[in-house]
Amino acid sequence: MITADFLIDDADVVATCAGPSPRRGSAQGDAGLLTRASVAARDGRIVFVGRASDCAHKVQVQPNAGIIDGRGKTVIPGLVDPHTHVIFAGDRRDELQRRLGGATYAEIAATGGGIVKTVSATRAASEDELVALARPRLEAMLEHGTTTAEVKSGYGLDLDTELRMLRAIRRLADEGPLTLTATFMGAHEFPPEARADRDAFVTLIADTMIPAVAAEGLAEWCDVFCEQGVFTPEQSARILRAGLQHGLKPRIHADELALSGGAGVAADVGARSADHLIFVDAPHAARMADANVIATLLPAAAFFLKLGRFAPARMLIEQNVPVALATDYNPGGGFSPSMPFIMALACFGMHMTIEEALVGATINAAAAIDRQHECGSLEPGKAMDAVLIDGPLSNIVAVGMPGIAGVIKRGEFVA
Amino acid sequence: MITADFLIDDADVVATCAGPSPRRGSAQGDAGLLTRASVAARDGRIVFVGRASDCAHKVQVQPNAGIIDGRGKTVIPGLVDPHTHVIFAGDRRDELQRRLGGATYAEIAATGGGIVKTVSATRAASEDELVALARPRLEAMLEHGTTTAEVKSGYGLDLDTELRMLRAIRRLADEGPLTLTATFMGAHEFPPEARADRDAFVTLIADTMIPAVAAEGLAEWCDVFCEQGVFTPEQSARILRAGLQHGLKPRIHADELALSGGAGVAADVGARSADHLIFVDAPHAARMADANVIATLLPAAAFFLKLGRFAPARMLIEQNVPVALATDYNPGGGFSPSMPFIMALACFGMHMTIEEALVGATINAAAAIDRQHECGSLEPGKAMDAVLIDGPLSNIVAVGMPGIAGVIKRGEFVA
Repeated sequence: MITADFLIDDADVVATCAGPSPRRGSAQGDAGLLTRASVAARDGRIVFVGRASDCAHKVQVQPNAGIIDGRGKTVIPGLVDPHTHVIFAGDRRDELQRRLGGATYAEIAATGGGIVKTVSATRAASEDELVALARPRLEAMLEHGTTTAEVKSGYGLDLDTELRMLRAIRRLADEGPLTLTATFMGAHEFPPEARADRDAFVTLIADTMIPAVAAEGLAEWCDVFCEQGVFTPEQSARILRAGLQHGLKPRIHADELALSGGAGVAADVGARSADHLIFVDAPHAARMADANVIATLLPAAAFFLKLGRFAPARMLIEQNVPVALATDYNPGGGFSPSMPFIMALACFGMHMTIEEALVGATINAAAAIDRQHECGSLEPGKAMDAVLIDGPLSNIVAVGMPGIAGVIKRGEFVA
Repeated sequence: MITADFLIDDADVVATCAGPSPRRGSAQGDAGLLTRASVAARDGRIVFVGRASDCAHKVQVQPNAGIIDGRGKTVIPGLVDPHTHVIFAGDRRDELQRRLGGATYAEIAATGGGIVKTVSATRAASEDELVALARPRLEAMLEHGTTTAEVKSGYGLDLDTELRMLRAIRRLADEGPLTLTATFMGAHEFPPEARADRDAFVTLIADTMIPAVAAEGLAEWCDVFCEQGVFTPEQSARILRAGLQHGLKPRIHADELALSGGAGVAADVGARSADHLIFVDAPHAARMADANVIATLLPAAAFFLKLGRFAPARMLIEQNVPVALATDYNPGGGFSPSMPFIMALACFGMHMTIEEALVGATINAAAAIDRQHECGSLEPGKAMDAVLIDGPLSNIVAVGMPGIAGVIKRGEFVA
């Protein structure tokens, strides 16, 4: 007999997302749907997933255990957001109104806006301030079902501020309830003082920042914004290889605004994930598939930038690239903390099925940050992280429906 | 001295939307923005809107009045949703999952889904059941800032059920807090029993249903789904003219799936609003402008149907047609109750500015249901219906941000 201190009993549907990880090709659409199913946990870990009728025989629920009536509900794994920029200071929300009124990014930057504004404000902020500013952003993510997330540095672009951002992420990770993994992204942009000698800044990142970040154990990942006008493929590869030498696993912003070589770098250096990929083509996708690179797509970035197109999710799936989804939550253009909204854009903008989108937001997203053994599916041994949805699975993509009935982290209701 | 029992004091921005109604052309973008402004009300009616510094001189706030600190907040008029189908029975939310998996509407209909399923369930439901089912839908709309809405019949398609739907709307209107206006839409579709003799069904609507609805005073509006395969322009005009003879003002579902003549009918019969208009062209828009027809756009319908295009909002504005926005909240494809989501699609999908979208969701939406003298702007004499937004106006379109800090109806917090 299995003992449990937490039980979701007799749900209409449990989408376990259990199975191979990451999921690719036709398997992307296998969300492991069980009907009339239960999920039981003990000490925040799943101990049983299966038919409700089996659960009654196999699971003994402790007195005073939390028992949730799953009738009328769908249970999915806690959502995983593998690409965010939620650590920053300053407020650029007014830029959106101007941008929609026709102002260009260059015009906004010329009047003191743009990423430079975030960099200035972040450099001026203390670690305590960065933590306090990020906390409500993480809370908003949690309310939308995210229980595990990646968070990047990259608004310091100098050693001290990058380290301060990463320490803020570590504190927020220690605080919980979200599980966080930290990415060093000193190569997010060239700061104003570095634009005269770009290669010198690349050297600073590779030879000074990365060793310092690694020495303090502040990051698991190293990321680069590889794009025309920002870091070249050669500079990107150099930085990611330097990260690898210091134990930072590579990931990359690739081919967001043009086919600029990022997906190729991802394949060359063995990045865990290449992100954005709005302009990736089939040959590069095939190289990603061969190199086991996950495609992390961020359709809200394309939506809010009014690019008029999304990443070619169907082509990537056909090319056997595992597709993950993320918010790109950030101060300049990633305005939504909501993975359900991202899933809606995946379904209605990128023509993914709900099952594919769910796999992208759970087990494949977990794999994109190397957490596939800890979360991303409902399987015995994994963390009891889940989202309860009122009604059918499809309610999660009905934007604005109050469809989330509860968010569970380690067996406790957190939203 | 003006006395007040409710005050929003010193808001960062008050978007009054005061001025001509409806707003068209370049005036569509005039949201009447005031900075550092206050709004005062008495007995649920606005008595003052203007500078916070003036308010202190001119307005005497009664003891025990509700006073809201507006610092850090934006105040907009309560949102108006001029096109919904929230009265229905049955559940078709599972169809979404199938549709995203590739099933066609015809395949879903062949297995008992589609509008016929809603019609069957609605015919079988009592008035009490229809009221109880709709109440949480209206509650969800309210939580997203909607304080006034239009609601249609049209899932009965027989006299008894149509009357029962309209009586349910009247009861919900009496209950509040949302202000509702009722539309008779017996011409939503041809019921299965009427498909052999379509003109006979048109006659039934014109000669039997409309007089019965009017005799009981159950509707203010008459609507028709004018589209290829549904009601022809001639049938639509006949029904709308019959409505006019019985005091029901015309509105129309037009040119959603093809340029099928609906906008022309709207101009011919003097409809207050033509809705959807995804395929409308410039000559028809010009006829609408001449006939003072408002274009009510429903971008969530296009989004959830994956039409790959939206209504030509910019062309309509250029042609001097006032643009209103609505959710099209319905059981088969209009999955979102959220006007802020509609505004986001208007901005990021239809290239409207935030100010244009706000005018579309407030004063122009009010004008689309003839409520422009009662709501839709913050002006003395109008209902004290407002939405408080945390931070700048643009937060309302950052989908999933918990941007709504409060919803006020007649001077009371209702969400």
